[in-house]
Amino acid sequence: MHRTKVRIVEDALDANNTIARANREDFDRHGVTVVNLMSAPGAGKTTLLERTVSDLDGLRVGVLEGDVQGSFDADRLASLHIPVTQLNTDPGFGGECHLDANMVRSALSSLPLPQLDLLVIENVGNLVCPAEFKVGEDARVMISSVTEGEDKPLKYPLMFRACELVVINKIDLLAHLDYDLDKFLYHLDQVNPGVERMLVSARTGEGIDAWREWIAAAGERERALA
Amino acid sequence: MHRTKVRIVEDALDANNTIARANREDFDRHGVTVVNLMSAPGAGKTTLLERTVSDLDGLRVGVLEGDVQGSFDADRLASLHIPVTQLNTDPGFGGECHLDANMVRSALSSLPLPQLDLLVIENVGNLVCPAEFKVGEDARVMISSVTEGEDKPLKYPLMFRACELVVINKIDLLAHLDYDLDKFLYHLDQVNPGVERMLVSARTGEGIDAWREWIAAAGERERALA
Repeated sequence: MHRTKVRIVEDALDANNTIARANREDFDRHGVTVVNLMSAPGAGKTTLLERTVSDLDGLRVGVLEGDVQGSFDADRLASLHIPVTQLNTDPGFGGECHLDANMVRSALSSLPLPQLDLLVIENVGNLVCPAEFKVGEDARVMISSVTEGEDKPLKYPLMFRACELVVINKIDLLAHLDYDLDKFLYHLDQVNPGVERMLVSARTGEGIDAWREWIAAAGERERALA
Repeated sequence: MHRTKVRIVEDALDANNTIARANREDFDRHGVTVVNLMSAPGAGKTTLLERTVSDLDGLRVGVLEGDVQGSFDADRLASLHIPVTQLNTDPGFGGECHLDANMVRSALSSLPLPQLDLLVIENVGNLVCPAEFKVGEDARVMISSVTEGEDKPLKYPLMFRACELVVINKIDLLAHLDYDLDKFLYHLDQVNPGVERMLVSARTGEGIDAWREWIAAAGERERALA
């Protein structure tokens, strides 16, 4: 019975990857670079975007906002006068805890792709399933808040492996926590040796320039690799 | 297609509830009160348990530790000299992001039920799916860290509804955050009006006595309701 379960999961992931490739082709045809932003609930994905998406070297940025329900983050970002599309996993998708390629595909017609250079997909806050489902993105970024503890790479290794960048957020709180940054980085290198990482505080703005440069250059990096 | 997906989810939850009832009967037969502890990753479930489980009015306490993989939390708790059983969702269960009744059932034979008065099931860190799957527990507790922001009850309403107690943790950090506790409580009452709540810092011990009393009395409350 357990083996059957694993088999079903593998088949579902195969089907997902096929749809993800179709999404990717649509994004490429419009010249849109896509970044899939993942983290645990409350790690600061939306605050990081608020800090940066309206000021990215003249890039035209849009956001696809994934949530189980509601449009709280989309409403926050819409006030920045960028195109934001809400994608809820609750109605029709069974309240899924992640975005998958089919959900993103269902939202494509609502996205102004011809008017965008960069699309950020803010995934559902969750350290498990979002890592399993590609959605057609060029790059995956995960945000880990220092308030979550140093053990998270070891407990959620797939998430920390399935990304090209780890943003370590809320460093303004380091002085008030029993958090050993070296230990976190050691654990991170155990599961994803040498993965690019940066320290930021989305709240105070510390380290934000490095993030701004990284995401603004995502398209160029992608074209250099292609 | 979306409707079919929802139907499959409903059937799976029906099957889960049947197994949960069987688990509950086994727990009841041994006179063990079971508390299902849920939260986002890094909200402080294990630290809260470390603070309290070895000192609960003479109650014999065990922990069933749910994780995708590894035994980091189980190792921390085992040093308190209480029986701890590790349940990983990765091998055999497809890396699930939550515990379900069948997984808990598979662990029953590893639990020293005749030697326990209270079993705490520490769920996988996740604010979505654990709320959908009863496992045979008497009570469900969710921990919300103030570092996660005030919007979480609105974004993950099922989780904040599917519990009898909300523990608001890490209040030692309140002075260093832009966190409006009244706003959080307002949102909490919107999705689960009047649900019992307590403010604690598992790190400093502030408010911990209320939690200790609540969990020590969980069995009595359950018997009074029965």
